[in-house]
Amino acid sequence: MKIGKGVEWAAHACAMLALLPEGRALSREALADFLGVPPPYLAKQLQALSRAGVVRAQRGVAGGYRLARPAKDISLWDVTAALEGTAPSFRCTEVRRNGPCGATARECANPCDIAAAFHRAEKGYRDALAGVPLSQIVDGAARTATPERRDRIRDWLARNGAP
Amino acid sequence: MKIGKGVEWAAHACAMLALLPEGRALSREALADFLGVPPPYLAKQLQALSRAGVVRAQRGVAGGYRLARPAKDISLWDVTAALEGTAPSFRCTEVRRNGPCGATARECANPCDIAAAFHRAEKGYRDALAGVPLSQIVDGAARTATPERRDRIRDWLARNGAP
Repeated sequence: MKIGKGVEWAAHACAMLALLPEGRALSREALADFLGVPPPYLAKQLQALSRAGVVRAQRGVAGGYRLARPAKDISLWDVTAALEGTAPSFRCTEVRRNGPCGATARECANPCDIAAAFHRAEKGYRDALAGVPLSQIVDGAARTATPERRDRIRDWLARNGAP
Repeated sequence: MKIGKGVEWAAHACAMLALLPEGRALSREALADFLGVPPPYLAKQLQALSRAGVVRAQRGVAGGYRLARPAKDISLWDVTAALEGTAPSFRCTEVRRNGPCGATARECANPCDIAAAFHRAEKGYRDALAGVPLSQIVDGAARTATPERRDRIRDWLARNGAP
């Protein structure tokens, strides 16, 4: 089972955007600088997040990216689905219909127990991520960060959060 | 999130092996025929299952594959892990250490809430599959199969299950 590593960057980028005061945005370059990742790679994640309605690009003097809705209404599943899509990771090709003992269409009215078990496990995975809003990530980070790190982030945001 | 489609074949192959009477085995060709998949593809899954100790290859007149332990002691997670490995799908690269506000090693003593949430979700996924033994798959299939399909499978097994 694999998840693209862009999901990690995207989650951290969204958590940073959740810290912005109302009406402010961060440029792609500033976000990439903050995360220490190449701007071209981050561009792909931001496009995907924008298409999925997780972030919004605003143009003009105060141009850049901000969250498209409140941090409490965006979950880690929203971020993951924006990048990885929502197709099931287990694709049932109805193997049981194949071969010399292949089941008939009528015999396959219900999903087989193998597919059902994978779909159940996957629903649990999605639900677990859907239960973690960005607001919770940000609150947790604020609680556990040292005062020095909180100061570094506050100063960086004051310098980079447009306008 | 992606899972190789070989996992589906492997799960169905193992469920078939779970039907074999004690001391019997199935050749790779017979299994591939039963599943309607190309023998060379199935060879890769069988090697992986064998390396992971899920199936055992026996040589000689009664040569072929059989389960390495009772079906109640082999779960869908065992089959998945044999093929996909056990590395976490979410790889934390400690993005928070990067950039101008990067956290110090001391500030990263605990995993960040993003990594922790993905690891929790993934543990749930694994546990869900680990809770489904092959014996349960086989019992469920036997309960729901039509008498005609059960007969087809029994006859095919009688013809192909070595010795």
